[in-house]
Amino acid sequence: MPNKLTTDDVRAMIRDVFEAQMPFHQLIGLEIPSYGHNTIELKIAMKPELVGNIMHGILHGGVTATMLDVAGGMIVFSQVLENMDELTQESVISRLQNLGTIDLRVDYLRPGRGKEFTATATVIRAGNKVAVARMELHNELGDHIAFGTGTYMVG
Amino acid sequence: MPNKLTTDDVRAMIRDVFEAQMPFHQLIGLEIPSYGHNTIELKIAMKPELVGNIMHGILHGGVTATMLDVAGGMIVFSQVLENMDELTQESVISRLQNLGTIDLRVDYLRPGRGKEFTATATVIRAGNKVAVARMELHNELGDHIAFGTGTYMVG
Amino acid sequence: MPNKLTTDDVRAMIRDVFEAQMPFHQLIGLEIPSYGHNTIELKIAMKPELVGNIMHGILHGGVTATMLDVAGGMIVFSQVLENMDELTQESVISRLQNLGTIDLRVDYLRPGRGKEFTATATVIRAGNKVAVARMELHNELGDHIAFGTGTYMVG
Amino acid sequence: MPNKLTTDDVRAMIRDVFEAQMPFHQLIGLEIPSYGHNTIELKIAMKPELVGNIMHGILHGGVTATMLDVAGGMIVFSQVLENMDELTQESVISRLQNLGTIDLRVDYLRPGRGKEFTATATVIRAGNKVAVARMELHNELGDHIAFGTGTYMVG
Repeated sequence: MPNKLTTDDVRAMIRDVFEAQMPFHQLIGLEIPSYGHNTIELKIAMKPELVGNIMHGILHGGVTATMLDVAGGMIVFSQVLENMDELTQESVISRLQNLGTIDLRVDYLRPGRGKEFTATATVIRAGNKVAVARMELHNELGDHIAFGTGTYMVG
Repeated sequence: MPNKLTTDDVRAMIRDVFEAQMPFHQLIGLEIPSYGHNTIELKIAMKPELVGNIMHGILHGGVTATMLDVAGGMIVFSQVLENMDELTQESVISRLQNLGTIDLRVDYLRPGRGKEFTATATVIRAGNKVAVARMELHNELGDHIAFGTGTYMVG
Repeated sequence: MPNKLTTDDVRAMIRDVFEAQMPFHQLIGLEIPSYGHNTIELKIAMKPELVGNIMHGILHGGVTATMLDVAGGMIVFSQVLENMDELTQESVISRLQNLGTIDLRVDYLRPGRGKEFTATATVIRAGNKVAVARMELHNELGDHIAFGTGTYMVG
Repeated sequence: MPNKLTTDDVRAMIRDVFEAQMPFHQLIGLEIPSYGHNTIELKIAMKPELVGNIMHGILHGGVTATMLDVAGGMIVFSQVLENMDELTQESVISRLQNLGTIDLRVDYLRPGRGKEFTATATVIRAGNKVAVARMELHNELGDHIAFGTGTYMVG
């Protein structure tokens, strides 16, 4: 008999997987301070390896794109969880395997200067098959570095 | 007196900087086999740290976005070089400092399976201030992994 | 008993509906010279009402976006038809009601000058739920006016 | 000697031109109830000619794209005006001729049902050469129909 899980249980598991078991996330030092029903926060501390412009010492645009893409995927999946009939490890893993980015747009607003960067996201189109999220990246001073919009396959 | 350079000289320099002196490019193992007037080729060998999905062992979408963004930026800059009146280290560096991604769209076509990934790009809108490029990512079997479109500030 | 239809029958019907029964298409004078398995061609003749810039007499960017969006939707639906088990009026209409644009990107390459504009499209990601197309707009001289990318709900 | 104008004068002129002298705007019935420093509001009343889906009677996605594109262009131009040294008819017209959409993304959130649609916009990246805006479309009930993001050449 499958163990019933709460959406909070599942988010805690996913947060752990995405933080500790995704090789690329560990390579860049991605942390996930919070992951709730309608909220996601990803953080990354600036470090030399993430620099994309040696003259200016700013964050590589690929790191920005990565953080926005992951934030969007996690927030739409959080909403998927809320609509699932039964949460078991099996049903969640099966659903998670269907999660994929269809397309992503990043708007780079200003150079990625800072010591720490935080990505957040909100769902703008919920759905059983496709969902759309908007994402933002700020530095530790609150400067708005980038906007993103992502369309995700969720079912 | 400034040393005059050819566009090929400059591309060789940029290729070296982007391959050997950009920390994030070294972190992910980005190589630049060719960079010419109308051509750019970026390669990356799959390695465990680039995996974004441990169940399927596929390339992280953030690496895809990174490769497409860099390929687009390099191809539009190559075209900028062709239109510069005088190529000196100073004029090139000054122009390179103005290069920046304004926005990027990535269309993920299929999962990033493979041993080696190659990004290519072409300019679709040339300009002195803004240029637009289209990019593609394929694996070593020729499977088309992703399309990209990037709008770049070039002046 | 439902009448069986061929994909060509269905495309002919859809072409007629999109050309003759869609009010906005008639308002702008949209014609559909060809609609096949892998091909779609939309045409529009320049006329004063479509001008977006009185100083330059060029096509309004909204007409460009409209033509690209419709071309993309029709080409992905053509591919959906090929994969349907049984084509009846009922099954086609039901499927057509699910067709919708999720997101659209238009890259404006040059001003829309010309006497006639043609939009074409190709499927870059086929799917049962979601499909992605790339579109192009040219004038009668072959000048490339715009590129588009559209993500469509198809099931 | 050129007549000096205020930014409010210029916006009133532009609003008039965009509402009364742009043939495509008149074709679709575009109205511009307000245009200020940081604000733009475009309205359109639903009418049979704007329908894109005869079964559901909903607004054609091309009208949505048009409204969002125009709203974005007007809001970035409003910000350009604030930074111009001297406002004369000549300097404004010359600047307005440079205004052009580079790329546009539309995210369709829900079907365009309603009697009246309103587009609004805000600048997310200001600049002398390129500016980026985000746009929204709502119906008269406040239902959120679409989001847009546009990158504009402004100088």
